[in-house]
Amino acid sequence: MIKVGIIGATGYAGVELVRIILGHPQAELSAVGSVSFTGKKLSDVYPSLADCCDMELVSTEEVIARSDIVFACVQHGLSQEFAAQCHEKNVKFIDLGADFRLEEEADYKEWYGLDYTHHELHEEAVYALPELYRDKIKGKTVLGNPGCYPTSIALGLAPAMKNHLVRTQGVVIDSKSGVTGSGRKLTEGTHYPVCNEAFEPYKIAAHRHTPEIEQTLSDLAGEKLKVVFVPHLLPVNRGIVSTIYAHLNPGVTEEQVRGAYETFYADEKFVRVKPAGQTANLRNVKCSNYCDISLHVDPRTDTLIVVSTIDNMVKGAAGQAVQNMNILFGLPEDTGLNMVPTSF
Amino acid sequence: MIKVGIIGATGYAGVELVRIILGHPQAELSAVGSVSFTGKKLSDVYPSLADCCDMELVSTEEVIARSDIVFACVQHGLSQEFAAQCHEKNVKFIDLGADFRLEEEADYKEWYGLDYTHHELHEEAVYALPELYRDKIKGKTVLGNPGCYPTSIALGLAPAMKNHLVRTQGVVIDSKSGVTGSGRKLTEGTHYPVCNEAFEPYKIAAHRHTPEIEQTLSDLAGEKLKVVFVPHLLPVNRGIVSTIYAHLNPGVTEEQVRGAYETFYADEKFVRVKPAGQTANLRNVKCSNYCDISLHVDPRTDTLIVVSTIDNMVKGAAGQAVQNMNILFGLPEDTGLNMVPTSF
Amino acid sequence: MIKVGIIGATGYAGVELVRIILGHPQAELSAVGSVSFTGKKLSDVYPSLADCCDMELVSTEEVIARSDIVFACVQHGLSQEFAAQCHEKNVKFIDLGADFRLEEEADYKEWYGLDYTHHELHEEAVYALPELYRDKIKGKTVLGNPGCYPTSIALGLAPAMKNHLVRTQGVVIDSKSGVTGSGRKLTEGTHYPVCNEAFEPYKIAAHRHTPEIEQTLSDLAGEKLKVVFVPHLLPVNRGIVSTIYAHLNPGVTEEQVRGAYETFYADEKFVRVKPAGQTANLRNVKCSNYCDISLHVDPRTDTLIVVSTIDNMVKGAAGQAVQNMNILFGLPEDTGLNMVPTSF
Amino acid sequence: MIKVGIIGATGYAGVELVRIILGHPQAELSAVGSVSFTGKKLSDVYPSLADCCDMELVSTEEVIARSDIVFACVQHGLSQEFAAQCHEKNVKFIDLGADFRLEEEADYKEWYGLDYTHHELHEEAVYALPELYRDKIKGKTVLGNPGCYPTSIALGLAPAMKNHLVRTQGVVIDSKSGVTGSGRKLTEGTHYPVCNEAFEPYKIAAHRHTPEIEQTLSDLAGEKLKVVFVPHLLPVNRGIVSTIYAHLNPGVTEEQVRGAYETFYADEKFVRVKPAGQTANLRNVKCSNYCDISLHVDPRTDTLIVVSTIDNMVKGAAGQAVQNMNILFGLPEDTGLNMVPTSF
Repeated sequence: MIKVGIIGATGYAGVELVRIILGHPQAELSAVGSVSFTGKKLSDVYPSLADCCDMELVSTEEVIARSDIVFACVQHGLSQEFAAQCHEKNVKFIDLGADFRLEEEADYKEWYGLDYTHHELHEEAVYALPELYRDKIKGKTVLGNPGCYPTSIALGLAPAMKNHLVRTQGVVIDSKSGVTGSGRKLTEGTHYPVCNEAFEPYKIAAHRHTPEIEQTLSDLAGEKLKVVFVPHLLPVNRGIVSTIYAHLNPGVTEEQVRGAYETFYADEKFVRVKPAGQTANLRNVKCSNYCDISLHVDPRTDTLIVVSTIDNMVKGAAGQAVQNMNILFGLPEDTGLNMVPTSF
Repeated sequence: MIKVGIIGATGYAGVELVRIILGHPQAELSAVGSVSFTGKKLSDVYPSLADCCDMELVSTEEVIARSDIVFACVQHGLSQEFAAQCHEKNVKFIDLGADFRLEEEADYKEWYGLDYTHHELHEEAVYALPELYRDKIKGKTVLGNPGCYPTSIALGLAPAMKNHLVRTQGVVIDSKSGVTGSGRKLTEGTHYPVCNEAFEPYKIAAHRHTPEIEQTLSDLAGEKLKVVFVPHLLPVNRGIVSTIYAHLNPGVTEEQVRGAYETFYADEKFVRVKPAGQTANLRNVKCSNYCDISLHVDPRTDTLIVVSTIDNMVKGAAGQAVQNMNILFGLPEDTGLNMVPTSF
Repeated sequence: MIKVGIIGATGYAGVELVRIILGHPQAELSAVGSVSFTGKKLSDVYPSLADCCDMELVSTEEVIARSDIVFACVQHGLSQEFAAQCHEKNVKFIDLGADFRLEEEADYKEWYGLDYTHHELHEEAVYALPELYRDKIKGKTVLGNPGCYPTSIALGLAPAMKNHLVRTQGVVIDSKSGVTGSGRKLTEGTHYPVCNEAFEPYKIAAHRHTPEIEQTLSDLAGEKLKVVFVPHLLPVNRGIVSTIYAHLNPGVTEEQVRGAYETFYADEKFVRVKPAGQTANLRNVKCSNYCDISLHVDPRTDTLIVVSTIDNMVKGAAGQAVQNMNILFGLPEDTGLNMVPTSF
Repeated sequence: MIKVGIIGATGYAGVELVRIILGHPQAELSAVGSVSFTGKKLSDVYPSLADCCDMELVSTEEVIARSDIVFACVQHGLSQEFAAQCHEKNVKFIDLGADFRLEEEADYKEWYGLDYTHHELHEEAVYALPELYRDKIKGKTVLGNPGCYPTSIALGLAPAMKNHLVRTQGVVIDSKSGVTGSGRKLTEGTHYPVCNEAFEPYKIAAHRHTPEIEQTLSDLAGEKLKVVFVPHLLPVNRGIVSTIYAHLNPGVTEEQVRGAYETFYADEKFVRVKPAGQTANLRNVKCSNYCDISLHVDPRTDTLIVVSTIDNMVKGAAGQAVQNMNILFGLPEDTGLNMVPTSF
């Protein structure tokens, strides 16, 4: 059994990791960490976990000491030091935050306002989106788990970009995320009477996921590109829908597009390309590791419209992290991840 | 007092009209009509209206016979005959459906699958978006009240199009509508467990509001244009948010854009251009006739992002219809429309 | 025009008062007060109010100085001093908090942990539930506006208690309130992902509204009684539903009960006793000053079940406060309160 | 592997059964049946199940022919014939409907308006609430799976009734159920704009679960009793909360009550008695087979208030049915039922 430790276990991604690891046949929780709640039981903070995980919340040091692999669910800027400690002790490290996602330190500096503190770790680290970078992930010790929005978007555009079906410039991405995406911290915008029966975009063309999105799409397209990315807060608990608009290259047909997507994802268990006539809906991926993608062509404007949806807490965070763990430990990628979506 | 009759009073737009007319100081309900519920009281169908409007639902003929003006809230294809009957009796007619919105019969035929049955009425009729076509509305007897999505979009783009601030082609419109927009009819997609905690686009690049949107924008831009329009079903009762993406023309600055919008709407009571730094949110217009517009420029891609929000039932339907009635009867445009948004 | 000042205008009850006063034909806002936001415009805090109320938030002193009547929407313990200041300046005072609701200082001390600081004001003050205490309200200068739960419950049981139709002891009250009832302050329980798709009772048999409920029911019944009162947090923005269980006295029939309620409320504009076969639903009173009451008898257990629903922000707070103001100023009670419920 | 067939697989309970059986290590889906959708794939009806269960929907006969055990999720009145067919073929049968829940045919007749058609099956059948009737379930071939409300209520009151801690008469049960409880069928009351931001009781003191509730509680109490039962429709997808009010017998203390519950459920994996100071919330049991129970005593009125919450689709339907299947096949009761609640 793989011994799994979680730093920041009381955040939403952390508690979702707990839920998934508890059902994983080859892994067991070795320690759950929290700065704010050290000494309390996890089930005191989340009564949902009573009898399921009554472990005491411990310090980061203890988490690392007890684990074969550590997942960090903490704010950006904090993970590098934890990664270094893990590295020293031969403990694998998966960061669910932003510290190991960007290849260019300049991007990190521009969007997060911080410098890299451990350059050698950044050279070791890999941006761990399994469907795209599986081969690079194997054998690594430090992984940057992708952001929620970028996961939905990279998977949604990969076949089109890779196969040069669309114009690389001028892509518009209109994303909508459930409120767990904003985390456990109380904010005015996530106060129930403010957020319920309401809707608005936020961080318009200024969200920190932008360089991460562009990094992957540029890599796929083979050229540097920029996107317009606008996230919105959706009054649901879970789920992301990204509606993506790209201009079809001349002569490209809907059949060609669909064929390219079906080929690209033919062996991917967690990506479901919807048949023609169906539309991806976040309802259908809830509580699962699936990414559902539907393809639509507007012949009037030669636009490819991709709808890509994931559960932001699973494929967009904890599920994908476990998928990465499985790769690191040589397990079938779907081990412990066969959760059937909840339907309602 | 203006005698107001409503055909299709038991639909959502109809009942919202009732709510507004009941508070209108210069108008009174003369008759409410319904095919399905004739003989019942309106408050039997909507217990919310008990003591407020216990009028009996009557036939279309009776509605017309008792009224100075008739609002029709019926499916497309039915209004032309009602309009003709009103015309004959010198009763003004405002259609909240689609029959009098499109200037080109070819468009109506293509998108609605029907022919015009009363060509002379279509020549008389005007597309009645007051902020844009106020002068054409005055003195008319038949009006086509704009659709909900098109209202949010036309107001959201008018100053930019009119002032040639953005490229006319390649505009992307990602709209999200509350569920009342789907009407009172039971459908699988609006069944609570299907619609709640869910989100998806529908009628992707194929919604019937598309030609109406293009008609107005083309008129504003002074050239024929096409847009990509994708509506989504938002799990809230009321409200539309349209996030609109247009490419800025070379050299156009955010200040210039903001200035153009502020000038364009300086005297418009029902359009609030948000100050820099604020984002339009449907929460702030609920139950009111306001359209809130916020402007955002992405300097990385030279994109203008406009967020335009209305209450789909008020400015997107019943409120705008009453605004049009006020114009037809020479009243101040905001008479009976000073509803303060509900905040929550 | 009555000059109306509001202390605590940025709380939910305060902003609802603003909405109502803005539509009141005989009153005008003279000042809006806030401790936390002094110097800001109210519409900075609530962008919904842009162009509707851009008044600057001022100190309590200024509110009192500019007003004929002051509404206080502040935490218990703070109102007595404000009331005293108003009293001195001949300004009428309506407290939307708890300071002037309880007749017995001992109750206040037991449930709120504070002493009365201005006994003479408490003698002057009246518990201002218009439908029950209208005559006592007239001519007063200090009013205690009832709590939201107690309003729904007192109106729901008054005819039964007054006419001795039910046993006075053993009444069970199971109430459910929308989240605005918890106010504007951020709390874990009202964080969207915690509160959405969730449900629980809180302050079980320990809510501070209990003595207020018992005070009114005891007064109506003519004897001291105790109730079991359990409130629940309902995942909606607005509205309270109280389901009330009382044991019918021997021989009392459903017809008798219905007759008593219809008689009791025959002249009450804001109470709608539903006809047999209908059930009160908070949907039907939203954004209005109505209290809807439905009556149900379980012949198997001789239990009267009363369902009583109000909009917690209107009849449960701001609307009732304006109703009381109308009484104090000799206006028809429904002046400015003819809001038709929103239906959806 | 146990071969599991489901009749009525496209209903909400059916599809939840599919989800659970797909994760069950000792059972496999052998056939899914549907009358309305025969010939379609289950994943055509529920796209959430694509790649998870693409089985074709077949006739009832085929379901029975292929299975070791059949679950029926159909309207009352239809199951008896299916049970008979199963019985003949030595196929075990668990009815998730109401046909095998009531011991007295007279009750069935009174509340469901039908006669028993297969008396010998009713004699064989057992009311299968495992925590209470585990021993009677073993070895049976026909089970009546309890209703959702009755499960929450029986578990919530069993220790109190069994230990004579409360008065048997005068129990008041105020239950609230998520909308999946109303099923997949479109109705006006479950249309999103009607049901969202709304709340009301329904079938007040007239719900068909009443005799089932009374049957179990009478059995536990050792005397015939009647309850007041009022269900409400709660605007959430999943979950039931029952708030139960019972009068404590003289001298019974809160400690005594808590002790009795803890003892009664000491070995029950799926019942979590909350520690003092915590309140059961449906959030904490979502998507799991848990029943959370919290206990509260009102010393002012000597009332025991029990809050009992389950996921109506799991412990209230499909999960409990699988728990029963495990008993019938001699498996540990929690096999395939270790779903950790989702927390959000």
